[in-house]
Amino acid sequence: MKLKLIPAMLILMLFGFHASAQEALFNAQQIISPEIHENSTVTFRMYAPNASSVEVTGDFLPTEKIETPMGEMDGPGKAKLSKDDKGIWSLTTESLSPELYSYSFIIDGLRATDPNNPFLIRDVASVTNVFLVGEGQAALYRVNDIPHGTVARRWYDSPGLDMDRRITIYTPPGYEKSNEKFPVLYLLHGAGGDEEAWIALGRTAQIMDNMIAQGKVKPMIVVMPNGNVIQDAAPGEGNDGMYKPQFMVPKTMDGTYEANFMDIIKFVESNYQVKADKAHRAIAGLSMGGFHTLHISRYYPNTFDYMGLFSAAIMPREDATGKVYSDFDETLQNQMDNGYKLYWIAIGKTDFLYDANKEFRAKLDGMGMPYEYVESEGGHIWRNWRVYLTQFAPLLFK
Amino acid sequence: MKLKLIPAMLILMLFGFHASAQEALFNAQQIISPEIHENSTVTFRMYAPNASSVEVTGDFLPTEKIETPMGEMDGPGKAKLSKDDKGIWSLTTESLSPELYSYSFIIDGLRATDPNNPFLIRDVASVTNVFLVGEGQAALYRVNDIPHGTVARRWYDSPGLDMDRRITIYTPPGYEKSNEKFPVLYLLHGAGGDEEAWIALGRTAQIMDNMIAQGKVKPMIVVMPNGNVIQDAAPGEGNDGMYKPQFMVPKTMDGTYEANFMDIIKFVESNYQVKADKAHRAIAGLSMGGFHTLHISRYYPNTFDYMGLFSAAIMPREDATGKVYSDFDETLQNQMDNGYKLYWIAIGKTDFLYDANKEFRAKLDGMGMPYEYVESEGGHIWRNWRVYLTQFAPLLFK
Repeated sequence: MKLKLIPAMLILMLFGFHASAQEALFNAQQIISPEIHENSTVTFRMYAPNASSVEVTGDFLPTEKIETPMGEMDGPGKAKLSKDDKGIWSLTTESLSPELYSYSFIIDGLRATDPNNPFLIRDVASVTNVFLVGEGQAALYRVNDIPHGTVARRWYDSPGLDMDRRITIYTPPGYEKSNEKFPVLYLLHGAGGDEEAWIALGRTAQIMDNMIAQGKVKPMIVVMPNGNVIQDAAPGEGNDGMYKPQFMVPKTMDGTYEANFMDIIKFVESNYQVKADKAHRAIAGLSMGGFHTLHISRYYPNTFDYMGLFSAAIMPREDATGKVYSDFDETLQNQMDNGYKLYWIAIGKTDFLYDANKEFRAKLDGMGMPYEYVESEGGHIWRNWRVYLTQFAPLLFK
Repeated sequence: MKLKLIPAMLILMLFGFHASAQEALFNAQQIISPEIHENSTVTFRMYAPNASSVEVTGDFLPTEKIETPMGEMDGPGKAKLSKDDKGIWSLTTESLSPELYSYSFIIDGLRATDPNNPFLIRDVASVTNVFLVGEGQAALYRVNDIPHGTVARRWYDSPGLDMDRRITIYTPPGYEKSNEKFPVLYLLHGAGGDEEAWIALGRTAQIMDNMIAQGKVKPMIVVMPNGNVIQDAAPGEGNDGMYKPQFMVPKTMDGTYEANFMDIIKFVESNYQVKADKAHRAIAGLSMGGFHTLHISRYYPNTFDYMGLFSAAIMPREDATGKVYSDFDETLQNQMDNGYKLYWIAIGKTDFLYDANKEFRAKLDGMGMPYEYVESEGGHIWRNWRVYLTQFAPLLFK
């Protein structure tokens, strides 16, 4: 070879070199945070020599009461880190139970992400760092060395909403090469969420891959639509560009989504190898998505054999006058009369929707409408919704 | 309906309510940052009443010299924000040219993400906020109201590397319903990147959607593999779990990737509706991906009709003894003799690989090997690579 070789060092250091890589190489703190130890304790570290206080706040700490405009509520706990003589603050937790946790730092009163942890998930308008600890339940949230399904972000035409809309679709391992037809789970997000919520915070692809590989869950397609009818896509992924997401989006719970849900089913059933019948359709959702599940499944009362209400909201708002909500009792009765395989309700003991669900169960009891009920610890949190998915999915299409 | 209605306010506030949503609702600063003004100036804001200094650093500011172990280099510029009497720091920029920009805050000397901007992109181990300004070139990076392709994360079997590996594949609008066969662009990332780099930092899906809709680019499949042969997937997406990504990954440039690239082509050509011939295969990449493009295309010297070297590294490391690098001149001659449609080389005037590319062009000139050459302003940065993609893609498959 005739060309002068670029020195190996230069090549090593400079390929793909640009502004943030410079940071990574030269300025960033070469420390590991979080460090997950074998005994499931976790060490957080933050280089902040001039800070006078560094705390970590996250869902692995005992909750603390916080003042809100609506009164005192449970908020994430906080713990103080200690500074060493090099200016590195650190804290090692107690042994944590297996889970996907999220956290932020609070540095001199300001919330900050951990600059040494590039793994973050957006939840509504907040972005927090995440980490995984332990085996057991957490092993279902990991990527393991097993066959993997495909996760596609596609766009479907919704004639009812008069727009192309983005949708996240999980197809099981081997789907593309298979001649089989598969059952479908429609999996719906809560308020503030979108078509990214279940795949990111819910670890849906990892849960399905792992439980399918274990033989505990039937291979199925999981369809994760966007339940905010004024959006074509998640914030940053649609025509509205990048903007600060809101917790409640206009028209989200006025019946429009439920009334147009058939657009999604038609798209799926004309674009995928699916068993297009009631016996092979399931629908589930968390919080607002549980509400959508309840109302969609009774509004189309002979469409789904499996319903999952995860920490569901139950009743429409008083100002929601959509046709969907006008015949609650009659359609619920129809749904019962038509028959189904499973009506599954799960909620945490401290969930603010606990009483609403208790009333709903009393209503179902009064009607003689059969359901299965799971009561967990904890409140209205993703930790519960991931667990509910791992409990609900094995019951489907058996 | 017999059930007591939950008050609308409660419903409004509480659906999907959990720890970080509490933050979003009650504690977070209800300020907008960045705010993009109609005249393309941008205001950054940060609520930090007790901070003594808040700066913004980003690629929209003039570069500053920074000291590194390798000497003085260009680093991202910095600008100071000013505090108002409410404790909100702000800065409004000059009018910015159309672009996708990235930035961070520096608060009392500590780098921090912007808590009011949920849009972040990881680049190697660094996560920075991003925003889009203006029309023109930036309009190619937006999601516009046009038909959209599908972006799938799939896993393919690589017999050569003996693992299932994750790959990102863009299929053009209408692909799923079409009986046509499509051409394929293999698009390769740089050092520190992975199968997420082009789709996130490169805005590939937006560029392809927009330029296909404008009739400037032929509908094509874009395949974005992972060029780090010891990884099955991007950090956090594979068997190795979540870990701090490195800039250089072992075995990345020893010839193993190039020698096993046929595994990727075989997967694509047996799983997608593609025109499986040289006339309908293009390969391009940035930096290390340009290096891979150069070496793959000459190692398989009759496989691709279109090559794109974006700010490419050229020569192998002195210690890289892979078979792929043993017959550089002969295979390059073969590639020339076999003929091709386009050998496209682009680099910025201040790129540290400028001289290496100049030498390479001299070599090609000496051989009489035809190529097209584009010299841009600027250095080894994503801004150039996005532009190069918008310049290269229209030349393909015409």
